[in-house]
Amino acid sequence: MDKVDLAQKLSMLDEAWAPKIVARLNDYDIQVVKIKGEFVWHQHDHTDEFFLVVSGRLTIQMRAGDVELGPGELFVVPRGIEHCPRSDGGAEALLIEPTDTVNTGDAGGEMTAVKEPI
Amino acid sequence: MDKVDLAQKLSMLDEAWAPKIVARLNDYDIQVVKIKGEFVWHQHDHTDEFFLVVSGRLTIQMRAGDVELGPGELFVVPRGIEHCPRSDGGAEALLIEPTDTVNTGDAGGEMTAVKEPI
Repeated sequence: MDKVDLAQKLSMLDEAWAPKIVARLNDYDIQVVKIKGEFVWHQHDHTDEFFLVVSGRLTIQMRAGDVELGPGELFVVPRGIEHCPRSDGGAEALLIEPTDTVNTGDAGGEMTAVKEPI
Repeated sequence: MDKVDLAQKLSMLDEAWAPKIVARLNDYDIQVVKIKGEFVWHQHDHTDEFFLVVSGRLTIQMRAGDVELGPGELFVVPRGIEHCPRSDGGAEALLIEPTDTVNTGDAGGEMTAVKEPI
């Protein structure tokens, strides 16, 4: 029954691309993540993915075009759409997706993270 | 494939307690809502409910105690827990819940809203 202060949780992260769970909404993970540089191109075949930028600027690269997000802006990547998050200057975001979602989707590889509570 | 600017969407609302849909995440509605005064005590038996405060201060009153939220703070009301949102000074929030969720839960009544896109 505790509230979550996003800035406080984000201040506890020291690694980019390592999302941590701050709350649960039914079978969805509410996560915070630090973003820096470029992720890996991937897609989630069975779920949409929610991004809300808390600080900095985040580009969601997609094959059909990019979406540029600043603080207070959100975007839902539709299922099955290949995407690659990128932030040259660094960004902090709130990320929501079903619990069983793998961050690297179909791509896998060394950027695959184990999501743990923080 | 459009991004959502929360402040811009919230500026389009002129009525409190009338959530509007700004995006979908699978079968969940991503909504913005203006809050002013006290809502009605109610519960959702089959779903949790996500609140993130964008501006102002929001109190989630519950029988076991209140949670006080300011900007950048979130709380998930667990399913089956009676609650009553309140903001004497006014607040703006992001609200996430399954599409078929009724805002007044088991209570019904005149504050029941039809959720439409904005």
